[in-house]
Amino acid sequence: MNLPSRFPVPPGGTIGILGGGQLGRMLALAAAKVGVKSHIYSNAADAPAFDVATKCTFAEFDDQTSLAAFAGSVNAITFEFENVPSDTIAMLARAKPTHPGAHALAVTQDRLAEKKFLSRIGVATTEYAAFNPEESGELGQIVVPAVLKTRRFGYDGKGQWTIRNRADLETALARLKGAPAILERLVDFSFECSVIAARGRDGTFAAYDPPENTHGEHILRRSSVPAPLTRAQSEEAKAVTARIAEALAYVGVLAVEFFVTREGVLLVNEIAPRVHNSGHWTLEACLVSQFEQHVRAIAGWPLGDPARHSNAVMENLIGAEAEDWQTLARKSGALHLYGKNEIRAARKMGHITQISPLNDGNQRDGHPD
Amino acid sequence: MNLPSRFPVPPGGTIGILGGGQLGRMLALAAAKVGVKSHIYSNAADAPAFDVATKCTFAEFDDQTSLAAFAGSVNAITFEFENVPSDTIAMLARAKPTHPGAHALAVTQDRLAEKKFLSRIGVATTEYAAFNPEESGELGQIVVPAVLKTRRFGYDGKGQWTIRNRADLETALARLKGAPAILERLVDFSFECSVIAARGRDGTFAAYDPPENTHGEHILRRSSVPAPLTRAQSEEAKAVTARIAEALAYVGVLAVEFFVTREGVLLVNEIAPRVHNSGHWTLEACLVSQFEQHVRAIAGWPLGDPARHSNAVMENLIGAEAEDWQTLARKSGALHLYGKNEIRAARKMGHITQISPLNDGNQRDGHPD
Repeated sequence: MNLPSRFPVPPGGTIGILGGGQLGRMLALAAAKVGVKSHIYSNAADAPAFDVATKCTFAEFDDQTSLAAFAGSVNAITFEFENVPSDTIAMLARAKPTHPGAHALAVTQDRLAEKKFLSRIGVATTEYAAFNPEESGELGQIVVPAVLKTRRFGYDGKGQWTIRNRADLETALARLKGAPAILERLVDFSFECSVIAARGRDGTFAAYDPPENTHGEHILRRSSVPAPLTRAQSEEAKAVTARIAEALAYVGVLAVEFFVTREGVLLVNEIAPRVHNSGHWTLEACLVSQFEQHVRAIAGWPLGDPARHSNAVMENLIGAEAEDWQTLARKSGALHLYGKNEIRAARKMGHITQISPLNDGNQRDGHPD
Repeated sequence: MNLPSRFPVPPGGTIGILGGGQLGRMLALAAAKVGVKSHIYSNAADAPAFDVATKCTFAEFDDQTSLAAFAGSVNAITFEFENVPSDTIAMLARAKPTHPGAHALAVTQDRLAEKKFLSRIGVATTEYAAFNPEESGELGQIVVPAVLKTRRFGYDGKGQWTIRNRADLETALARLKGAPAILERLVDFSFECSVIAARGRDGTFAAYDPPENTHGEHILRRSSVPAPLTRAQSEEAKAVTARIAEALAYVGVLAVEFFVTREGVLLVNEIAPRVHNSGHWTLEACLVSQFEQHVRAIAGWPLGDPARHSNAVMENLIGAEAEDWQTLARKSGALHLYGKNEIRAARKMGHITQISPLNDGNQRDGHPD
């Protein structure tokens, strides 16, 4: 029976984590810091998070027997990726406190449902429209340039095509293979930023300062905090994130990605219902990282102080960039390697974070309003 | 065969750690940060480090079969406590690179050998003399006040007795039960400090700034960095530590504890051939902690920068102090809980570190020379 408890996971308790990549691994390490065990459930035999977990289950995400045993062995459940089957979450949630919940997951798994949700709660996004490939094969209906995206299962630019002309549309339609899609007006943004924040089981909310995010080939390359936002913009980004978390009755860490237009308008690009690559700098620049904050939130503990003591620049190590670890280890900065067995192109292998004093260059308040 | 290698442990490799307490646990967590796996070997079934290790062996430290299997499964070996049997280390060192080595361990396991070693390399200590309980039962030979200590297996004040009069001596002799001992003149010190430093396989040396250490009932309560040392004293403490590490051909992290007398003289109290409780603040105030530094040293990696970006105060949570974790989690600061199953008096259950900007109060250079 699943009695509500203010503190479902005490020290010595166990959190169950679906997914065993670097996010699951860093969640397990953060849990261990505060005396909490981890049980990692992954369908990859060589999941990096298995290396640091107290218990491991290697099984598919629809394996009812394994899921039931997993749920029986933990105090609360969470996940490191948003494409967990909704049936799986529903089943687990009947057994143990599971956060974020099925509703937050359903909304954020589907780009169209997410955009409609944001519009409903009055949060500005890019212009968008549902796109049914069966009905909408003509360029005439589309305001170009635009981006065609699959509604589900996209990440790191997978399932996204920029549409500027008829040839682009034909290519995209061929690759889309009839999947439901969404069409978004291409935004001529100045830069991208994100807010990493947590909402506790008691409704308390804590947001980290937003970093500026730089992508290359649709993969995050660099997060730099503070972003070149005015104080008012930064507060607005946090307030929008709070409104989203509240409307989803969210528990745990979430990330909201924003475009900042050349006119300084904040538009939500997407919501990630989990810890996020653009929050890795919190490991060094804050006393409570995004990973520990997520553990605290789902465990029912008080949220930690999200204040940063330093400015930070986090750079991802992607694919072959991680090969020369001897040189990387010699650099100053905090080196993180994810323990992946194989280096592959576009695979996130690790990251390095540099920090500097808050008052260097006074970026935080120095940007003109 | 044990061929010398510059990089015995690459990313994805495994370090073997003898001992599964909080030091082994934090070593395993630091190894994981840089993509290195851990195999914990402990004779305690509920060793806290088992929770975060990739592999675990629960066996006695003289179990030849288990030790051989352990050595066969790892790339390099280290330990988290200095009372590992010397035969065990000698056997493991024949199989795999084992650091710190048998010589460093032999010297630092025996208080008398350690003091003689320090005298030989010209490092100042308290006045000391070998004490044979069979021959030296008379107070007349002893300059009081003094401290009688067992030569081996003492920690946290265990096996130590202050001698001020004949009654003290009789009590101590009764408890000593004929064990070989050392007598040290009681030092009227101003405060205690320590240097945590690392020496690499290539002989490079890196020292953290010394913290001031406060003990209560012989257990470390608090480490605060910077210590109220002049710059010259701080440099001297690091130089003495470098001399010790060099003379021991040391590889890994070591801690040297000092008394600072009322006249400002530095006297070495003892050497710990391992990561040390008075270095836990490096987790938050430096980009490379003492734990990662030890992993880097034994793995043959470049040592990290020991510079601290912040001042820090680390306070231990001892025994029942860890009971009220809900209040502790609400405090600012970095909370560490070690995942120990049982709270016992005088048991180290966790610690909390606060940090502050380097230039607050300008303590670092502000102390009069």
